[in-house]
Formats: sequence, C-alpha cells, structure tokens
Amino acid sequence: MSSTFGKLFTLSTWGESHGGGVGVVVDGCPAGLSLTEADVQAELDRRRPGQSKITTQRAETDTVHFLSGVYEGKTLGTPIAMNVTNKDQRPSAYNEMREIYRPSHADYAYQMKYGIRAVEGGGRSSARETIGRVAAGAIAKKILKTVGIEVIAYVESIHNITLPEQTKIPSMETIESNAVRCPDPEYAQKMFDHIDAIRKDGNSVGGVIRCIIKGCPAGLGEPIFDRMEADLAKAMLSIPACKGFTIGSGFEGTKMLGSEHNDIFESKNGEIHTKTNNAGGTLGGITSGELIDFKAAFKPTATILKKQATVDKAGQAAEVIGKGRHDPCVVPRAVPIVEAMTNLVIIDHWMRQKAQNGTFEF
Amino acid sequence: MSSTFGKLFTLSTWGESHGGGVGVVVDGCPAGLSLTEADVQAELDRRRPGQSKITTQRAETDTVHFLSGVYEGKTLGTPIAMNVTNKDQRPSAYNEMREIYRPSHADYAYQMKYGIRAVEGGGRSSARETIGRVAAGAIAKKILKTVGIEVIAYVESIHNITLPEQTKIPSMETIESNAVRCPDPEYAQKMFDHIDAIRKDGNSVGGVIRCIIKGCPAGLGEPIFDRMEADLAKAMLSIPACKGFTIGSGFEGTKMLGSEHNDIFESKNGEIHTKTNNAGGTLGGITSGELIDFKAAFKPTATILKKQATVDKAGQAAEVIGKGRHDPCVVPRAVPIVEAMTNLVIIDHWMRQKAQNGTFEF
Amino acid sequence: MSSTFGKLFTLSTWGESHGGGVGVVVDGCPAGLSLTEADVQAELDRRRPGQSKITTQRAETDTVHFLSGVYEGKTLGTPIAMNVTNKDQRPSAYNEMREIYRPSHADYAYQMKYGIRAVEGGGRSSARETIGRVAAGAIAKKILKTVGIEVIAYVESIHNITLPEQTKIPSMETIESNAVRCPDPEYAQKMFDHIDAIRKDGNSVGGVIRCIIKGCPAGLGEPIFDRMEADLAKAMLSIPACKGFTIGSGFEGTKMLGSEHNDIFESKNGEIHTKTNNAGGTLGGITSGELIDFKAAFKPTATILKKQATVDKAGQAAEVIGKGRHDPCVVPRAVPIVEAMTNLVIIDHWMRQKAQNGTFEF
Amino acid sequence: MSSTFGKLFTLSTWGESHGGGVGVVVDGCPAGLSLTEADVQAELDRRRPGQSKITTQRAETDTVHFLSGVYEGKTLGTPIAMNVTNKDQRPSAYNEMREIYRPSHADYAYQMKYGIRAVEGGGRSSARETIGRVAAGAIAKKILKTVGIEVIAYVESIHNITLPEQTKIPSMETIESNAVRCPDPEYAQKMFDHIDAIRKDGNSVGGVIRCIIKGCPAGLGEPIFDRMEADLAKAMLSIPACKGFTIGSGFEGTKMLGSEHNDIFESKNGEIHTKTNNAGGTLGGITSGELIDFKAAFKPTATILKKQATVDKAGQAAEVIGKGRHDPCVVPRAVPIVEAMTNLVIIDHWMRQKAQNGTFEF
Repeated sequence: MSSTFGKLFTLSTWGESHGGGVGVVVDGCPAGLSLTEADVQAELDRRRPGQSKITTQRAETDTVHFLSGVYEGKTLGTPIAMNVTNKDQRPSAYNEMREIYRPSHADYAYQMKYGIRAVEGGGRSSARETIGRVAAGAIAKKILKTVGIEVIAYVESIHNITLPEQTKIPSMETIESNAVRCPDPEYAQKMFDHIDAIRKDGNSVGGVIRCIIKGCPAGLGEPIFDRMEADLAKAMLSIPACKGFTIGSGFEGTKMLGSEHNDIFESKNGEIHTKTNNAGGTLGGITSGELIDFKAAFKPTATILKKQATVDKAGQAAEVIGKGRHDPCVVPRAVPIVEAMTNLVIIDHWMRQKAQNGTFEF
Repeated sequence: MSSTFGKLFTLSTWGESHGGGVGVVVDGCPAGLSLTEADVQAELDRRRPGQSKITTQRAETDTVHFLSGVYEGKTLGTPIAMNVTNKDQRPSAYNEMREIYRPSHADYAYQMKYGIRAVEGGGRSSARETIGRVAAGAIAKKILKTVGIEVIAYVESIHNITLPEQTKIPSMETIESNAVRCPDPEYAQKMFDHIDAIRKDGNSVGGVIRCIIKGCPAGLGEPIFDRMEADLAKAMLSIPACKGFTIGSGFEGTKMLGSEHNDIFESKNGEIHTKTNNAGGTLGGITSGELIDFKAAFKPTATILKKQATVDKAGQAAEVIGKGRHDPCVVPRAVPIVEAMTNLVIIDHWMRQKAQNGTFEF
Repeated sequence: MSSTFGKLFTLSTWGESHGGGVGVVVDGCPAGLSLTEADVQAELDRRRPGQSKITTQRAETDTVHFLSGVYEGKTLGTPIAMNVTNKDQRPSAYNEMREIYRPSHADYAYQMKYGIRAVEGGGRSSARETIGRVAAGAIAKKILKTVGIEVIAYVESIHNITLPEQTKIPSMETIESNAVRCPDPEYAQKMFDHIDAIRKDGNSVGGVIRCIIKGCPAGLGEPIFDRMEADLAKAMLSIPACKGFTIGSGFEGTKMLGSEHNDIFESKNGEIHTKTNNAGGTLGGITSGELIDFKAAFKPTATILKKQATVDKAGQAAEVIGKGRHDPCVVPRAVPIVEAMTNLVIIDHWMRQKAQNGTFEF
Repeated sequence: MSSTFGKLFTLSTWGESHGGGVGVVVDGCPAGLSLTEADVQAELDRRRPGQSKITTQRAETDTVHFLSGVYEGKTLGTPIAMNVTNKDQRPSAYNEMREIYRPSHADYAYQMKYGIRAVEGGGRSSARETIGRVAAGAIAKKILKTVGIEVIAYVESIHNITLPEQTKIPSMETIESNAVRCPDPEYAQKMFDHIDAIRKDGNSVGGVIRCIIKGCPAGLGEPIFDRMEADLAKAMLSIPACKGFTIGSGFEGTKMLGSEHNDIFESKNGEIHTKTNNAGGTLGGITSGELIDFKAAFKPTATILKKQATVDKAGQAAEVIGKGRHDPCVVPRAVPIVEAMTNLVIIDHWMRQKAQNGTFEF
C-alpha cells in the first residue's frame, strides 16, 4: 500500500501527471465535521501553479470535486473521495522523453522498477500527485483547528540566502503575503529576485522549509518505531525533491556538549516547560508539549532549460534540454505540502493516542 | 503496532531496561536460511556496553537465545523469537528518578502519555530496546549477503571533529579496527581522545554516522509514501538520540544550482550509471543502482555527570546529577544499530519489489 | 482503513448509493499487465442490475472508467483508480427513510456509529459499494488466469430449493447460461420460478453460493491469523447479507468421526493428493493443492414490498413499506462478488508467498 | 505479519510445539490497567491439557511469565511480552513423522510452503500456539469488563448430540461446572460419555461452539471490509480445526422469507431494540446493541489411535497410527480460545470506534 499513508486517518492518492486526473481517498475521517469543497480548494490554491512569475506557468486551476463521504455539508465517517481533473496537457512535449532519461528525474528508476512508465510529465512521479495530499491535509487541518493545533511552515532559505533566526513564530498572514512564503518582507524580496534571476538563466535552485506546530499537547507519538519525529521524517522525505530532515537542533546539535544541549525543565504558570527547545518538541518520540520544530531540505528542480548530457534507453549518449513551464524553485509551493503532511501525521497520532490512552478509565 | 517495523519482513520489539529482559519477534523471514545464535551474537557484541573505556561500563553480555522459528539450524519461515535477559540491574540507583524528571530524557513525555512509567533505566525508552533491532538486523544482513547487498556505516564526526570526505568506501575491517568506528586511524584516535576527555569531565557529545549501501539493485522503494529515502529516514529517526537524516546532497544540496546538482547519466561497461551521486542512490523514491548514501545525526547523551536544574512531578524546582556508567557518546555504539535498521529497510523493500514485479510474467 | 482490503494487492473502495458515484483504487498491481476497461466491464455487467426480471429493474449501466494506473493498455504498477457514476437516482423516494429505520437495514447502526448517515439508498451500506470490489477482482482474475488459477462460483440453493451435489465442477458457461447462476438447467428454472413468485408476492429469499478454486498450488495462506480459510471467511462475511461461511465439510463435518473425516493421502501420477477433500483444500491454513471448496450463506433481502412495523428516530412506533426496484433475491448477483473477493484473496496470498519463499535461494 | 492480529490492540504469537516455548507480544494495551500473571493464568488454566480424562493427558502446567510491559502491577502501555515454557516434550515420539505425512494434519502443507518444517508435535501448527491468544485475550477480557462487555462461549453440540436452544444466556459458572463446557448438566453428561467412548475407541469427534457477547454497545465494527462479523469470522477460522462460522440465522436464515427474517424494531424502556435477533447483533457490519450471537464449527481431531493409510515424503504408500495423549475432542478446550479471540476482536473495534468517533466534538 505504497500510496497509502496513515494508520487511522489514512489517505490513498492516485493519478498521473497526464490522463484522468489525480485524486485521493481519505478514510477514517471523524463523522460530523462541516466540510465543503471550498475548505479544500483554499489549500489547493496555495499549492497550484501560476501563483506568480516564479512558479510554473501551467494553466491549471486544480478544482477539487467531492465524490463521496460528505453529505449535506458534513462528513459521513466513510471514505471521502476527491479528484482534480488534469487540464493543461501537452503530451507532445514529452515525445522525446520516451527514449531519453532526464538527469535526476525518476524516469530511469521507474523504468527499472516496473519495466514500463507513463512518459508524459513524469507520470506518477509528477508533483501533481501532491494535490491529493494537500486535499487530505486540508481536512486534517480543519479538524485540528477544533482542538487548538496549528501547523505553520515557511521558507527559511533559498539557495544561499538564509533568513535569520526569527524571534517569534511568524503568522500565516505574514507568510502568505508574498510569493516566496518567507515571513520577512526584505528577505522575501531578495529570495524572489534571486529565483527570478535563476529562472531567466534557465537554471533552478532549492531551499529549506521550517515547520512549527503550535498547540500540540504532550503525549502524542508512539515508541518505538512510530515516534513522532520518525513519522514526520518519513512524511517529509516522501515529498518529491526532499533530501533531508532535522528536528530541533538537528545536525547542529551534534556540535554541542550535553550540558549545552539538554533542555532544562522549569515551571511556568503551573505548567512544566523547558527553557530551551533543542529537542524540537519531542522526547523519546513523544511530544513534550513544547513547540514541535523541524526543517526539510529541498534540492533544486531537476528540470532546467539548459542542455545536459544523458543517455537513452539503449544506453547511448544523448542530450536533453528542459522545455518551458517548470518551477525554477519548488520550495514556495512545497510549503503547503509540508503543512499538509504535517497535519496528517498529527491527526493520526492524536487519534492513536486517544484510542489507547483516552478511552478506558481504570 | 508502534513497536512493530516493516511490512513483509517485520520485527516487534519488547522489553524495558530493567525487568524480564528485552527481545524481538521477527516475522516473515524466508524459510531455509542457515542461522545460529552466533550469527546474531556477533552483531549484538558490536552493540553491547563495555567495549572500551569510552562506552558505558555496565557489565552486560547481552547473550541472545532463540526461542522459536529456527529448527536444526535453519529458519522455519515462522516467527523467530529472540530474547536477552537483563543482568546488571541496580534499581536502587533510580529511586530519585521516581520523583524527578531528568532533562532531555523521555521520563516526562512517557508520564504525560501513559500516566505511568517504568522508572528504572528509563524503562522502554532505554537504548537496550535496540538489542531487538540489532538481533533482527543480523538476520536481514545474512540474507542480503546472499544477493550481494552490504550495508556499511561509520562515524563521520564526533562533536567538532569531522572526518574528511573519503575517496573510497571504507571496509568493515577498517571501521571495526577501533573503538570509535571511524575508518581513518588518525581521526579515530582524535575522536577517541576527545570522547575520553569529555567523559572525564562528566559531559557528553554527539556526532554523525554515514551509511553506504553497496550492491543494491535499481528498482527498490515504493512511490509514493514508502519511498526508499522516506523509510530510511523513518528508520533512522526511530533510533534514540537521532535528530536528523540526509540522503545524498542533503541540506548542502540546497546551496547548489540545478545545473550543478543534477547527476548526469552515462554508460559504463554497458550499464547506465551517473557521473555524480548527489541523489544519494534514489530517484523518485526508487533505488537507481548507485550507492545509497545517507547520514544520521545523533545528539549528545542526555545523562551527564553534572548537576542540572529540573523539576519534580509536582513541578517544584529540583536538581539532578547523573550517576556513573553512561556512554559519554552513543555514536560508536549506534553504528551497528544504524546498519541493522538499514538492513531491515532494504530486505523489506526487496521482498515488496519481488512480490509485485518479480512474480508474474505477462 | 476499514474500506481497504489486502496486504500487497490492495483495494480501497469509496462511494455512496447516491451522489458522485462509486469507485475503487487498486494498489500493488503488478506492472505490465494488458488491461482495458472492457476487461473490467465484463465483470461489472455480471453484477449490474436489470439482467433479468428477477433482479432489480434499476436502469444502471455501471460503466467503468479508468482514471489512472493504465498506460497505453498496460498496467503501470501504480494505483489504478476506477469509477462508476451513479445514474438512476431517485432521492425523493427516500424522504421517509430520513426519520424511520427500516428493519434489518444498516440505517440504525450507521446512525448509532457516526451520528449521521446518507439517507438515500442506504448510502455507504448500499450494495453499489461492491462495484469497486468486482472491478478490482476483474484485474486479479486476469492475472491469476496467467498462472492457471480459476475461481468458479455458483448458486447452490435458493430458499428451500437445493441443488444436489454435483459430480463435476460446473463450467463458467453453464453457470452463466441462466439468470440464477445455477449450473443445472432444471434446478435453475425451479429457482427462477420460485424467486419470481416471491417477487410477485413482494417478499424476498436468500440462498447459498458455493465457490471452487481450481489450479491453486499448495503453499498459499499464512499461519497463524492470515490462514487462507480465515481470509476467505473474512472476505465472504464482508459482503452485504452474508451470514455464514464454511470450508470443506463445514458444520456437517462436526457430525463425522475422525476416522471418517480424515483425508487420506495417496500418490496420483507422481503427485501427492488426498482421496477425499473434507478439508476443502487447506491444511493448517495453507493450501494443499486440492480444490479449495467453500460456501457462503446469504440472507433474504431486507427490503420487502410489505408493510412492516418499526420505529422512527425518536423511538416512536411507525410503519414502513419497501418501494419498488429491489432484488427479491440477491444471491444470483452475489455470485460475481463472491468470485471477485475470492480472486482478491488468492492473488494477495500468491504475492505474499512469493515474497517470502520464492525470492531467495539459500 | 501473519502471526499478528488486530489493528490497535495487537497480539503477535510465536513458538512451536517443542523447543523454547510459546509466547505472545501484546501491543497497544491501554496503560494503567491492574494486571497480574494470575489474571492471565486463570484463562490459561481453562485451556490447558489434563483437565479431565476427555482431554489430552500431557502434563503441561502452562505457567505464564510476564517479561515486559507490566510495572508494579499495572500495564505500562508498552508491549506486554508473555511466555510459557514447553515442558512435557517427547521428541522421539515424532521420529516417524519426519518421513510420513499424517492425514489431515498440516505437515504436508507446511512442507510445501516452506520446504522445511518442525517435525515434533506439528511445530507451529500445534494448538499450543493458541496459548498466546488466550493470554492476550485474558487482558482484553479484563479491560472489557470495565465497560460492561462480557463474552460467553459454550459447547452446543458434540458429534451428533446437540443441546436444544437455550431460553436464556448460560452463566459462566454453569458452563464451567463440567468438563465439556456445556451449560445443561444432562447434555453435558451425555456429551462427556460420548467423548469418553470415542476416546476408548481411539477415534475422535468434533462439535459446535456458540458464543454470545453481552453488553456490547451499538456502533462497533467498520464498514466495509472490517465488519464486525467479518473480523469475527476471520478470528474463528484462524483457530485450528475450525471449518465454519455463522452469525445470527446463518445458513438456516437462507431458508426463511424476508418477512420472517427481518428483525422488527421496537422501543423498550426508552431504548430501541429488535423483537428478534436473526441478524445476530450486527447490521451492515456494525453492532446494533443487540446480543452478538455466532457459532463456530470444529472438525474431529486429526490424530486418531487407528491405523491410517498415507504417503511418505517420496510419495510412497505408508501407514501411520497416532500415539497416545491427544484430545479425542478439541471442542471443550476450544471454548476459552473462542472467547479469547472474540474479546480481542471486540476491544480492537472498541478502540477504533473511539479513535474515529469518540475523540472530536464538532
């Protein structure tokens, strides 16, 4: 069930870049939640192409349709199927790809795995698949809001431009106020200009997204294997182009002494908290009640508008050059995907914890 | 099933630091493999305490017993239960822990999650739990050897001492030739001396482990969620003290241009390979036939022999000081754990790929 | 994941009786299988309403569409999404159902579980859900044919008319030659006439389906919990209206002595077989190479065109009378559903067995 | 994970008839439950051999040990490992079995599946494996008691002696008052005498167990595949020697008209109930609040003390005769196993329902 994620609140995505569209089935959603297509569309609009000149200009509206699971405006508790039709298809643009492997794309690996692949747009490996995740995540987000949990992600770096450490958690409004999704207007502009220059040069860049979870109670996450940080790491590395994950101090923490790294407990307003948060919000795989704080690294887009050497299916030397309409940088559009996957991890663990430890009174 | 890992080749670990021991049940193991307790013991000996003066001096032999699943020296295909008895228990050393939360330990989070916890030795959050993983990994390792796959992990950095990039993959013999498990003798000595100095100071340090998988064919790993890198990330972040995972270029890759980062395909001796390996051996979540190459970050040990402020269960200010016999640095002993988890991920994906795409001929 | 079935070859169904249709996502399908919508439609046509005067007269063509996973006529190995639009909807016919619980329908139980339900047509509890299963089963069937496995189901009894024990396995052609799907023309006519008389009286009847699996090799099925017969039993009892499952001698076997019941091994043409098949094709949960032979009991349709006492949501006494277009007997249309679920169980276990015991050579 | 059962409250059994014992790991158990080995032993004592002259005379005390997961008399929420050592082993009694397949035993099927098998006592296919289930079920039983759910199973028929329909649910005391576990003393004696006569003749018999679940609220069970009756059917058919399952009217219900079979709703003391219970306590796979009422058929024991024809591994004709100490009838000892599996199904569904529909308030 490689296209299914979650244990209790599950999503199963389907669809290729070209063809009958992409979609998702969400199973295990609690019944009785008010839910409209507009709730989901709002998140898809944050993900879709064409939001600014630094994202791909493909003309996709990514309009979602509910096929099941919602009745008279409320969730039924049964599977919620949602789909988005593929609109702006130009299969002829991909004829060359039939024979030639694009560097750092999944074409070659899919061919080796399955002995067949959908050529156009990368087929299943297309980032269009993440539409299903964002749609499912929108439902999780709406539910988590009812218990005071909010996931906030933003761009921390683009290429070699890095936002300085923020003194407070940025608001969603600030983050969404610019096309880069960087909460500092000055850095956002720098990043925007840099991406735009890269775009004009036919090249691409990557960057780092930071994600904060506010309001998450202590006690979520399961030792041993389904630790909160393990499931978050898996969720992040499952996003196309993600190459790294850190929580709390991450790799930097390896350069600290234990006496510097340990987060000292203290009482604040009758609640136990830690003075620092090098742990990033989990202890032993279980949330501690502190902010959950992690980062995900995204590599530069593989498709560039420059000539590159490669080989064809027969192993013969060949050349390839990317053709228009690709994101020079996926990072801004990855922000809502990071949030969606995070909301999905959290709701699943919330339900798991309630099932085990919130049900019986002994 | 939070203590179960894997889809086809599964392990379920059990046990607390103190009490009836720790163990594991391995299910789905192919039948007919020659297997003895000595095969497993060899790996446990790499993990156990007391290997040198820079590891904890607890006197545990960690002797494994097969309880089921092996018959006349061969695996039966049915569950292989293995256990290790707890020997060197000093529960009285933990009386204080009953009331006081140790900074950066899991005590507090377990209490919040379950409303109860095994006090001695951290109970289930103890690194003794990883015995079960190493035992299970030893079986996976033996099977993978029959198809030419080898997992090699080593220490790349300790605190601020970092081994320079190696020009070739270190041999297991070189790595195992010193207590730090660093393949360069000079750096190994520097790291050893540094850990020893930290130990004498009652402090602790962390570090980074690099792991290479040799001989893995193209085609393993499942889009979308069970990508090879996603399952490796989850495996690593499920290890105690792990705070970060990168594959290939990782966070450094975010500072490269697409034109620098892309791995160019070429033909070598009739096989398709890439000139560089920024991807770290996977494309779109599927192995490409290149070396799989990832890193895991481990924070400094939480237990230090210095007085630290904390709170007790009632939230009142308190102090705590670690008492003897803790690793000043877990990284050298984490090497066989990293390898074990990696072997477990690979064998599971091998079996999944064979099940789907190696069974029918159309 | 209550709407997902299978471990390696999985299906996830979605959809309510009314609304955006019903569908299924099949994941884990081997790549490279030639597959067209016509392959699937052929099975759906066996299940759809309106096949004769003894089935419901709802005008549904149940036309299937592939949304993903098939490319240029072959399976990609990625999720195959299929949907069927709901056509003949008469929601106003269900207004009464909003307040009144129909006897022996799922309305009441859904309301108790979820606090909400889709009123029209029983929503998710409608037998329309089984469209997704038949569609998925059609794929499994096509694959299993390539390895010589064939599943044959037929009607063994309707109400109190029971087909005598057959001396040989009926052919699919014989079974499909009549509307009842009973392989004996004489009994088929008797059953047909009886169902038709029951229909005219506004009443309903049930019956028993027998299912035979030919060509299944020894070795499929997993001890302990995922025994072949356990998974078949679950598959059958998951079909609406199924109230019982037996394999081999079933309940009759409890009336035999061990000396009568034991199936004696003998050699036939160099192969080991049993003289009798009281076991029904499995030993210890594992297929033995004999015919797999089981039965499933289906109760009479709950909806009858007679006035029945019941209660409304407030618990007040009420009356209800079924309104037109319901099957007076679901059993003939359940035959392809039984086959589909059986094919799905078999292919999943085939893949599991190959993954564990067909992959490595020791 | 063929030896794992359940989704949230899981058990993984291990062990062969001979060798290091048998055991189970229970994961997902709620924390804070008072639990002692005596709680579990009480149920194991109901299952163990040697309870009377009609059960096998093997001298096994089946003493359970907790290895993990319980601390100071309470469950920790982490895996509970329990084991039972094998005592009365006579491997030499099985030398013949190495070459000869016993009729209707799993020897042959295991050999075909794995290419290897543990000869002594049937290895993994031994009913000793059910010790793990009964141990796990004892925990589930204790938890369910806190919410007023009780599972009661009893012997309804042995061979051709059938207890008449009972007018009320038998008490556990009545059932346990005799060695057969039949609630009517007169029928119990008849059955006992019959089994004893069969035993003296070296033959074996089977029978039917009926199981009632009291106090189960409406709303448990998941459409579509994880219906309550589907999971109960799987649970029953996973027990050695079980060949059939019916719920409510079962196969008899196929002989009723819809107008006879439908269970009419009515109000009783302000609660909605049904006048009859042909459904057996579920509607659409979901519990309705009525008694859950099902039956399981058990075939005669395969081992008989009579000479039977068979073949050896080479396919050559051979003879075999069972040697001492086997149950002439497994049904009385299967009663606690049926109860255990039922308690395990119910607690898992209870937790699933709470997780989805008992957690959020919209």
